[in-house]
Amino acid sequence: MPTPRLLVPVLLLATAAAAAQTPPKKFAQPTTVRELIAVSQPSDWRPIDPEHTLYLELSSGRVTIELAPQFAPKHVANIEKLARAHWYDGLAFVRVQDNFVAQFGDPLNSKPEVGEKRLPAEFTRSAAGLPFVRLKDPDTFASEVGFSGGFPAARTSADGEAWAVHCYGALGVGRDNDPATAIGTELYVVIGHAPRQLDRNVAIVGRVVAGIELLSSLPRGNGELGFYEQPEERVPIQSVRLASEVPAAERKPLEALRTDVPIFQKLIELRRNRKDAWYKVPAGKIDLCNVPLPVRERAEKPEKADKAEKRR
Amino acid sequence: MPTPRLLVPVLLLATAAAAAQTPPKKFAQPTTVRELIAVSQPSDWRPIDPEHTLYLELSSGRVTIELAPQFAPKHVANIEKLARAHWYDGLAFVRVQDNFVAQFGDPLNSKPEVGEKRLPAEFTRSAAGLPFVRLKDPDTFASEVGFSGGFPAARTSADGEAWAVHCYGALGVGRDNDPATAIGTELYVVIGHAPRQLDRNVAIVGRVVAGIELLSSLPRGNGELGFYEQPEERVPIQSVRLASEVPAAERKPLEALRTDVPIFQKLIELRRNRKDAWYKVPAGKIDLCNVPLPVRERAEKPEKADKAEKRR
Repeated sequence: MPTPRLLVPVLLLATAAAAAQTPPKKFAQPTTVRELIAVSQPSDWRPIDPEHTLYLELSSGRVTIELAPQFAPKHVANIEKLARAHWYDGLAFVRVQDNFVAQFGDPLNSKPEVGEKRLPAEFTRSAAGLPFVRLKDPDTFASEVGFSGGFPAARTSADGEAWAVHCYGALGVGRDNDPATAIGTELYVVIGHAPRQLDRNVAIVGRVVAGIELLSSLPRGNGELGFYEQPEERVPIQSVRLASEVPAAERKPLEALRTDVPIFQKLIELRRNRKDAWYKVPAGKIDLCNVPLPVRERAEKPEKADKAEKRR
Repeated sequence: MPTPRLLVPVLLLATAAAAAQTPPKKFAQPTTVRELIAVSQPSDWRPIDPEHTLYLELSSGRVTIELAPQFAPKHVANIEKLARAHWYDGLAFVRVQDNFVAQFGDPLNSKPEVGEKRLPAEFTRSAAGLPFVRLKDPDTFASEVGFSGGFPAARTSADGEAWAVHCYGALGVGRDNDPATAIGTELYVVIGHAPRQLDRNVAIVGRVVAGIELLSSLPRGNGELGFYEQPEERVPIQSVRLASEVPAAERKPLEALRTDVPIFQKLIELRRNRKDAWYKVPAGKIDLCNVPLPVRERAEKPEKADKAEKRR
């Protein structure tokens, strides 16, 4: 019998990237993303800010979320307020709809009121002043797509409207028909093919940078819209904390490959036109939501750790 | 506190569609896919052929796969031969890579040889003679996309090459670097954002029409490329059978909404421009892989059941 057939990897695993932080000379002409990461420089990476990072703790482990105040400042501020008040602790994932979203919140309205009761919509923002590295590939939905501060994004034009895009792992704010009801007490993570129809209809407030597999592998709900029919099916949330409020020993500082550096363009090109022996026909193009956004562990700076310790 | 925030559903659940097979007059102007399905006619549906349907049985339930002989006739024939020989029984899912694929096969090469040892590549086929209902929306990868026999597909032109597209739920044939090693002894199902870079590099042989959630919710593998590191993590396959070879009492006949009927165009338009109160900004466009392909249970015709009974 032939040996087991392998498919080449499409996703860069954070752990794989983290294993290769020392640039070896043998990858002078990288042909894969991993090889490219291996020749990156420290300046190609940006620390993920612990002041805008959520640790969502499940019994299965930690989901780490980078927040996006540049796209939804009021919503992010309110979510951070809720996290500081430990408001999310003890809530649960109540809905997991296949190829769509995993959603958590307070279905029984059991929590005391903290933070804003209504917020103005932050579905889009002005493109003016927003850094934007354009992706040249055509997009079905938007006239311009690209990356801003590490987030997949779109805009109508350089002086028009801009918004974060619903790619896999995006964190969005659930709401009723009234946009002002989106305040951050119900949140969802995209776990399927990008539901781009939600773009400009929801505030995107972050993206999962580690642990997405803990959400995407949850049992799907059998109820309408993927809600769990029985309360005991819900997946409890132990806590949601800002990384900056967690003791240093419990933190795992991360860094993300910058999207505004030349090596990121090389990464995109390697994915547009694969060079390994497995591929017979290069795609020639790439979809915004298929561009890898590498994240890896970084060494914590001691002074940051001390600062957090004092804050406890 | 406000009531729980809901997101409108993006996916039509087969069960939901099945619940509404009688056209009620109140949906004369449908505004949702479910309402549209409710006013469909029997002739808008096509039975899914049990001769080209696989039942993949896991301890958690059944995954139903419609095969696509129109795109990869030799590969489908070999897979059907393997299924008839019960060759897949007792194998396992060995790899589940997040936002990519769930893959099964024979990692220990423990099975006797059945069927072809090598096959010519069937990554594309001639577009001539292939029914093709074009989707007008722009696509990042292909000059023309649309639907053929219920499958998302692409082509270079009406007399060029055509291929089935890697949307969520697609079943593809794993292989080594040599295309001839793709024979159907290792298969994968897409469980993430469409990996369109695989298009034209792999034979697509089918799509999951029921039970995809049993695969997409599997634990992700911690090894390289999402392989399970420990053999005991692998997810056993009880059996893979052609639906036509299963006793009538164990079958669940399905039918799919035809993609070459006017109501399917109405469905697409309802998804391009949502009409319910939740959406504030219609997308105006739709991605090929976000078009719902409704499937529902159908009443089995008695003669079909008898035929299968006799074949046991």
